[in-house]
Amino acid sequence: MSVMGKPVLYSYWRSSCSWRVRIALNLKEIPYDIKPVSLVKGGGEQHCNEFREVNPMEQVPALHIDNHTLIESLNILQYLEETRPHRPLMPADPVKRARVREICEVIASGIQPLQNLVVLIYVGEERKKEWAQHWITRGFTAVEKLLSSSAVISSFLPAVPPTITKQSTGVLKELNIGNFTSHMEEMGNVGEQAYGAPYFFETNDAALFKLLDIINALLYLS
Amino acid sequence: MSVMGKPVLYSYWRSSCSWRVRIALNLKEIPYDIKPVSLVKGGGEQHCNEFREVNPMEQVPALHIDNHTLIESLNILQYLEETRPHRPLMPADPVKRARVREICEVIASGIQPLQNLVVLIYVGEERKKEWAQHWITRGFTAVEKLLSSSAVISSFLPAVPPTITKQSTGVLKELNIGNFTSHMEEMGNVGEQAYGAPYFFETNDAALFKLLDIINALLYLS
Repeated sequence: MSVMGKPVLYSYWRSSCSWRVRIALNLKEIPYDIKPVSLVKGGGEQHCNEFREVNPMEQVPALHIDNHTLIESLNILQYLEETRPHRPLMPADPVKRARVREICEVIASGIQPLQNLVVLIYVGEERKKEWAQHWITRGFTAVEKLLSSSAVISSFLPAVPPTITKQSTGVLKELNIGNFTSHMEEMGNVGEQAYGAPYFFETNDAALFKLLDIINALLYLS
Repeated sequence: MSVMGKPVLYSYWRSSCSWRVRIALNLKEIPYDIKPVSLVKGGGEQHCNEFREVNPMEQVPALHIDNHTLIESLNILQYLEETRPHRPLMPADPVKRARVREICEVIASGIQPLQNLVVLIYVGEERKKEWAQHWITRGFTAVEKLLSSSAVISSFLPAVPPTITKQSTGVLKELNIGNFTSHMEEMGNVGEQAYGAPYFFETNDAALFKLLDIINALLYLS
């Protein structure tokens, strides 16, 4: 007899990719435990042998669920959507779904990987800020254009429940744009969608998210 | 009355992300036309105003289908899967699907974005080879581990029809590993899966793929 325990999310508090999964778990009202993995302590707990068995990419998030451990945040969101359709993250129509996914992919493969921790360390202290700004600005300029040119997305984004897209843009803006003082103020739609997003108040993490917001603003924004 | 013409794929012959979509279209026996976008001619046709309207990220592929233009290769594959289930790219079981997707995401967000054309240009001529080798080796080391530790993937990969995973690994190895002479020879599973993949012979592009293979081998491999 197989006993399926509560899902366990391997997570770090500043990992925007982990936030996506936490928000989805909360939205779908799936109880879970968090196993914190510090990305900085001792050079990063994600690089230890034990965690490499969890995720060979040595990154969070990873989600242990249904007796399996899954990696890659968009993959995990899709799995949750397929196995827990309650409170859907995606529209039902295939074209609208594709519109949501394309923005998710622009963020998850066109922006985030270029300015995550492991890449910034490799780029080096001296160049990392300029590097991150470059790719974040490029990516969000495209996202802004996708949002403004797509009636489907524009009409879907403000709706509740939030889409995966809203989570991705919101979380990424929250965490990394703050860090690297990009040109978000010129980007009306994205900024508004992200900051106007009601997801803060639909998760258990509202206080933490708000705190992070303030910390980021104080530390990094001019 | 809406008339849906043949799908049009915006594509470049050396774009591995475009290959994924071409292979899927061919596998699913969907007739389509190719609109070539040279990523090098005149600094890159993808950066012209006309193409920016097609894809604000200024990248290929983009697929015009069902009166809509979709971007981001994994998004397009998923759309094809949802609207044209004939000859599925993914297993039916949600966990097996997740296993396939996680390898796709490791490649599409953990490897490819770090060594695509626009990033290598930004990194600069002097450092680009070392840069690309670093991320390709890191990524495929993880893919190799995911393959060897997952009975689901290992048993699914060699099956026909090929999965999205097989396409991604195959295409990426074919194109970029060749370029950057990574340590693929040490990576038994990935290399074998990629080279052993029957997809060459299931597409209309067999001759071109084989030619590319030979060119890459002659130019880059020691």
